[in-house]
Amino acid sequence: MTAYDIIEKKRYGKELTDDEINFFINGYTLNRIPDYQMSALLMAICCNGMSENETFALTNCMLHSGDIVDMSKIDGIVVDKHSTGGVGDTTTLALAPLLACCGVKVAKMSGRGLGFTGGTIDKLESIPDFNTSLSQEKFFEIVNKVGCCVIGQTENLAPADKKLYALRDVTATIDSIPLICGSIMSKKLASGAQAVLLDVKYGEGAFMKTKERAVELAQIMVKIGNRAGKKFAALVTDMSEPLATKVGNSLEIIGAIEVMKGKRNRLSDEMSLVAEKLLVLSGKYDSESARHAVESALTDGRALAKFKEMVEAQGGNTIFVDHPEKFALGETKDVTADKDGYVYSMRTEELGKAVTLLGGGRMVKSDVIDHSVGFEMRVSIGDKVTAGDVLVTVYHRDKNTDLVCDLIKNSIEIRDEMPAPKKTAYAYVTENEVEYY
Amino acid sequence: MTAYDIIEKKRYGKELTDDEINFFINGYTLNRIPDYQMSALLMAICCNGMSENETFALTNCMLHSGDIVDMSKIDGIVVDKHSTGGVGDTTTLALAPLLACCGVKVAKMSGRGLGFTGGTIDKLESIPDFNTSLSQEKFFEIVNKVGCCVIGQTENLAPADKKLYALRDVTATIDSIPLICGSIMSKKLASGAQAVLLDVKYGEGAFMKTKERAVELAQIMVKIGNRAGKKFAALVTDMSEPLATKVGNSLEIIGAIEVMKGKRNRLSDEMSLVAEKLLVLSGKYDSESARHAVESALTDGRALAKFKEMVEAQGGNTIFVDHPEKFALGETKDVTADKDGYVYSMRTEELGKAVTLLGGGRMVKSDVIDHSVGFEMRVSIGDKVTAGDVLVTVYHRDKNTDLVCDLIKNSIEIRDEMPAPKKTAYAYVTENEVEYY
Repeated sequence: MTAYDIIEKKRYGKELTDDEINFFINGYTLNRIPDYQMSALLMAICCNGMSENETFALTNCMLHSGDIVDMSKIDGIVVDKHSTGGVGDTTTLALAPLLACCGVKVAKMSGRGLGFTGGTIDKLESIPDFNTSLSQEKFFEIVNKVGCCVIGQTENLAPADKKLYALRDVTATIDSIPLICGSIMSKKLASGAQAVLLDVKYGEGAFMKTKERAVELAQIMVKIGNRAGKKFAALVTDMSEPLATKVGNSLEIIGAIEVMKGKRNRLSDEMSLVAEKLLVLSGKYDSESARHAVESALTDGRALAKFKEMVEAQGGNTIFVDHPEKFALGETKDVTADKDGYVYSMRTEELGKAVTLLGGGRMVKSDVIDHSVGFEMRVSIGDKVTAGDVLVTVYHRDKNTDLVCDLIKNSIEIRDEMPAPKKTAYAYVTENEVEYY
Repeated sequence: MTAYDIIEKKRYGKELTDDEINFFINGYTLNRIPDYQMSALLMAICCNGMSENETFALTNCMLHSGDIVDMSKIDGIVVDKHSTGGVGDTTTLALAPLLACCGVKVAKMSGRGLGFTGGTIDKLESIPDFNTSLSQEKFFEIVNKVGCCVIGQTENLAPADKKLYALRDVTATIDSIPLICGSIMSKKLASGAQAVLLDVKYGEGAFMKTKERAVELAQIMVKIGNRAGKKFAALVTDMSEPLATKVGNSLEIIGAIEVMKGKRNRLSDEMSLVAEKLLVLSGKYDSESARHAVESALTDGRALAKFKEMVEAQGGNTIFVDHPEKFALGETKDVTADKDGYVYSMRTEELGKAVTLLGGGRMVKSDVIDHSVGFEMRVSIGDKVTAGDVLVTVYHRDKNTDLVCDLIKNSIEIRDEMPAPKKTAYAYVTENEVEYY
């Protein structure tokens, strides 16, 4: 078996065996197969695809390239969610305590933000003294006691993916369903939760540009997850505008607290849907009882109390939970509409860049984050606006402020006509069926 | 313009501009673009192809990456031929003097053999004292005086191709018509001849496995050559058995001398056809007069006299031309038929390995070549044989002898049925038409 023969086989669109996939991925991870051979194979996979069997073998091999978290020390069922990446996707922050209130465990390991994607860990660290670097023992202890805990991802989770992703990122081989599946699912399976809900975003700023491809990705990921013996399902959701109205590190914590206080908006709707689906997936609820459990935990204050309990357990200053107005925020500057009309579309990916440009994200790992910056959406798609109306309020510290205001203005399209109404959730994908909303 | 964007464009099957191709190829040649990005682009080209415009831009860019030989100091029209690689392809050795006899110039720069392909330079160096490393002045002087000269290729001919080929060789990206075209045509155009006949081989042991793909490759190469302002045409020929009966370094010189003495066989037939086509391409002959000129130069001894003149001009010992029996050859060992039947097929590529295994080729550049080894085919496809008949006589120096005899025996298939008759030349491809034989 040689790397050459394996590349050639895939170049002609033939199905690789488990042994061939293991040989190549392990060889690459151990630096026995060079980058230039891996990038040729990756491009051949992009062009010719992979079967379900190949995708399963790829995922499995990447999964076993590093640590696999053993959650058996946690009492009860551990659930998790994964988003393929969205702007203002604050779901996790309120979801974790909400689910814990409903009797399932959330032992979440999250990543830091890099490039134009915000990280849950960075957001939580807006809360003074919040500790995201706990030992595994302490982590499990908090999960067992509180019901939820969010820490930083272990360095050695699916290292094969880390190496592969860096190469894909510079060889235009990101956009491939089997490769995206392998990357996401190897990490999710290594994270150890028993029931996982995937949130597959589609739209201009997402990996998947169309609904159809998002459903296709969701289907293969759910199949691979179930084949690995876990319970997986997926929501396919629209990313045509930021999910939360408040975007940025401290701002997203504030937004999540508002939701836990019972505020209804796109974020709370999507989070409630994710929570319901996860409760059903856990086997402890049916749809009706799940909806009721979520609704009541959000409205009777239990979710917020649980969040405070988690912040306390992780060393954070709970005054900020009780008084979110204490968060230091940047100076404000409004971006206004140039003309009358309807908010017709947004370039969400461009909006996502704003936080990083303001200093709230990092372009390289060593960048220090300013938690006080970000922006607040004052309009949604479909809103009628008059010239001069505020579209977005920017929170800044005099870094790239004008650039960001221009960027935001250019990312929001105002037209005379009303846009067609859009639902946030497009489909729900389980092992055997796709349910369209 | 970034390497990433160019890879992505080709990955989605879009046409690259001249600027994009120049940016990528020049960047790679100057080590500004790394191997892993080039191999991703190469695989995308393998999977999605290239248009004629892209192929022309690729060829042109590779052509200008190094020296371009200026043949203006040679009086009269300079012709050249190129074979895509065959076993026992001794054509050049007799073709050069033959063409010189017919009033066109042959200023040939040839490569050395590497891997399982024999090199014309290695063959000529079988003649004691034959000098293939001449200065350009001396080279042109001999061409002007004698009419032909064969020397080693300059190191700096299309260096972009050298770097690209090494990468393609380890990433399963050899088999691509635009890439093969770019590789061959950049070197041919840099070599400076005004009229070139391409010999595109097809069959199991050739780059092109089918006749149809060989015609396709021939067509694009002829188009690119003519677009570059030169006269190009191509023969598409079968490689189902070695072209010459004698294969090896000294053995091929002996075989070429036999042809120049008027012997008729597959080699002389193909060489005569190549010579006729080149004379017509040069514009100095029509088909009828070309055929006559070739025939008479071979039968009246002028071709052999011209060969001797060239050997002398290049310092070689002409006694070996007059008395080819003086060449030192290895010990002989016969490979015989195991059963009665017809010689049905040969694995020509395997036969090509025999010479290298016997010590007559090099696996790495520094290997020293034994000119005395090789083999002589005693049968052709379609011959009737009886068990015990000699199929091949091996000339060896006790290196891998048994291995090679087994390899040869296993490469010649004997069946009860007669094979369908095959013509050596399948098609003749010019700018505007394909003529099938």
